[in-house]
Amino acid sequence: MSDKQNIPILARRGNTLRYEDGQVIILNRKKLPWETEYITCSTYEEVARAIELMIIQGAPPLSYAAGYGLALAARSVRGSSPEKVLEAIGQAAERMARTRPTGSDLWYMLQDLLDLAEKAIKGGEDVEASIVRHVTCQMTRGDEVAEACGKNAADLLVDGDKILTHCFAGAAMIWMLVHALRQGKKVELFATETRPYLQGARLLASSAVQLGVPVTLVTDGMPGYLMYRGMVTKFVTTADIITLDGHIANKVGTFQYAMVAQHMGIPYFVLGYGGPDPRANGVEDITIEERDPQEVLECLGKRTSVEGVRAYYPAFDITPPNYVSAVITDRGVFPATLVHKYLGNEFTLH
Amino acid sequence: MSDKQNIPILARRGNTLRYEDGQVIILNRKKLPWETEYITCSTYEEVARAIELMIIQGAPPLSYAAGYGLALAARSVRGSSPEKVLEAIGQAAERMARTRPTGSDLWYMLQDLLDLAEKAIKGGEDVEASIVRHVTCQMTRGDEVAEACGKNAADLLVDGDKILTHCFAGAAMIWMLVHALRQGKKVELFATETRPYLQGARLLASSAVQLGVPVTLVTDGMPGYLMYRGMVTKFVTTADIITLDGHIANKVGTFQYAMVAQHMGIPYFVLGYGGPDPRANGVEDITIEERDPQEVLECLGKRTSVEGVRAYYPAFDITPPNYVSAVITDRGVFPATLVHKYLGNEFTLH
Repeated sequence: MSDKQNIPILARRGNTLRYEDGQVIILNRKKLPWETEYITCSTYEEVARAIELMIIQGAPPLSYAAGYGLALAARSVRGSSPEKVLEAIGQAAERMARTRPTGSDLWYMLQDLLDLAEKAIKGGEDVEASIVRHVTCQMTRGDEVAEACGKNAADLLVDGDKILTHCFAGAAMIWMLVHALRQGKKVELFATETRPYLQGARLLASSAVQLGVPVTLVTDGMPGYLMYRGMVTKFVTTADIITLDGHIANKVGTFQYAMVAQHMGIPYFVLGYGGPDPRANGVEDITIEERDPQEVLECLGKRTSVEGVRAYYPAFDITPPNYVSAVITDRGVFPATLVHKYLGNEFTLH
Repeated sequence: MSDKQNIPILARRGNTLRYEDGQVIILNRKKLPWETEYITCSTYEEVARAIELMIIQGAPPLSYAAGYGLALAARSVRGSSPEKVLEAIGQAAERMARTRPTGSDLWYMLQDLLDLAEKAIKGGEDVEASIVRHVTCQMTRGDEVAEACGKNAADLLVDGDKILTHCFAGAAMIWMLVHALRQGKKVELFATETRPYLQGARLLASSAVQLGVPVTLVTDGMPGYLMYRGMVTKFVTTADIITLDGHIANKVGTFQYAMVAQHMGIPYFVLGYGGPDPRANGVEDITIEERDPQEVLECLGKRTSVEGVRAYYPAFDITPPNYVSAVITDRGVFPATLVHKYLGNEFTLH
């Protein structure tokens, strides 16, 4: 397979999000794989809604969108006093922080941009342009991290691997497959459909088809049986946040599959991108987002039950480190309980 | 709660299936809970298709429908030679046996009816009428078994129980809830939606609402998290077949939830209706039905992914006895590994 292979659209951040002259243009992931539709946001509130509605999702991608949203906030008060500009950006950051609480990339993006805005004002620079430049650089860096993480994961695969995955593990998953193919390893995927949003069916499976990687879709009830039957050799997901002591928050369902994998002797690898969250010591630092239960009561817009049925929608779950075989990052592979080593040997857990 | 409570339609077999003058009339479960539609079958082939399409489902209910299908076969050759009548019934039984391979009720029903037909012919009785009488009696007996099993399960519940369930555990589940209410025990349910057919959302949740039992719907990826969070006190399902050594085949997904339940110290009870299959010694005697993968690629008729994605649809999975806290039958409660005691102390495993 040559470098000219058909790389899926979700492999590169710039395909899914850009800032153009006071507009944030976002690929609508909810319409994938059927339509390639871009939506245009002119205010930070529109960007915040796009994040909440999961038009853009995944911990790093939504943080970039939020960052561009702050650029819109800065633009809206262009020419105002420094106080007014900082107030507008601060308000926008507060709004963005409330969109989706679990992933940590968003928090860091907002902190960085608040600092940056202050510096830009002091240095007499254009705040909007500074923010856009920073976010765009972060997207490039994010692409590099995703590809390095995916490459490191591909190195751990062997010819013939049958990989169970859950949800859409993002660009690193695509790069893992690309590099596995380049290394001449034939692998195939078992993908959960990942209700209620069907990211496995819509995003992961369609990306795999585009790459020519065989992919078999199952419902979220089936991974246990696949593992029981010996049909799976590895389980691979990403994480929305990794704590310093090795807890993994990822799409709800991950925990139950990780537990079965361990009991069946199947390695569970986490695509850890840029490593753990330095602020998160342990499970107590994870906030599990609970989304509108209405989303569970529908599938592709059709209601699945009657009036009077309640629903519950935790978007993520937590997998303790003892169920994780390794965390694969852009800087290499770590045992989950030692994932804080990603931050350097000087870093100590407290 | 009085006996005048609103008993859901699926609590009694006669509400869902009847034989009327050369027609088998079947409640279309696929249209529940939105429509109460009955379909009419005039040939055994139509009944076989209704079973395959899951218009009627559940191991006992589909066996009754198959039985009535044999009555249609007998009727179609009324007045023919005994050989011809037996041949027609034999052909119909072979067709029925191929519809759905996992549940054992179907096999016993067909064997019983083949024997019965032979005797009826020898005794100069009307074969169609004999078959109809037998099936109808079995349905009455099935109702009694389901209610006794449900009552025994209700006895094990405690006030405040939060019960996770998967798929629709049939009439015994409804009777469990009815008796718990009569015993003054407040319980609530967490129901998986149970893709791809959504039996949990469509059949279980709507029955619970009708009974006034609080029910919270979750996707099939969420039970692990509910248990991790301590939101569940018991896990209860039925079984399509129970082997003499205590293996449970039930709707795919059961195994992964049973494993998490055990590790979280949550009891897993199986509504075992009329006990184990005397023919099935162990897991080697279970045939897991693999259904048309197309069904996994759709939800409520809408496609969930792109062309080129494969799918796999095992309808059931297998839970080993070490994950089962108890099997609850019409005759009482058994440890899974001793479920063969249901058949009497004389019965020995071989």
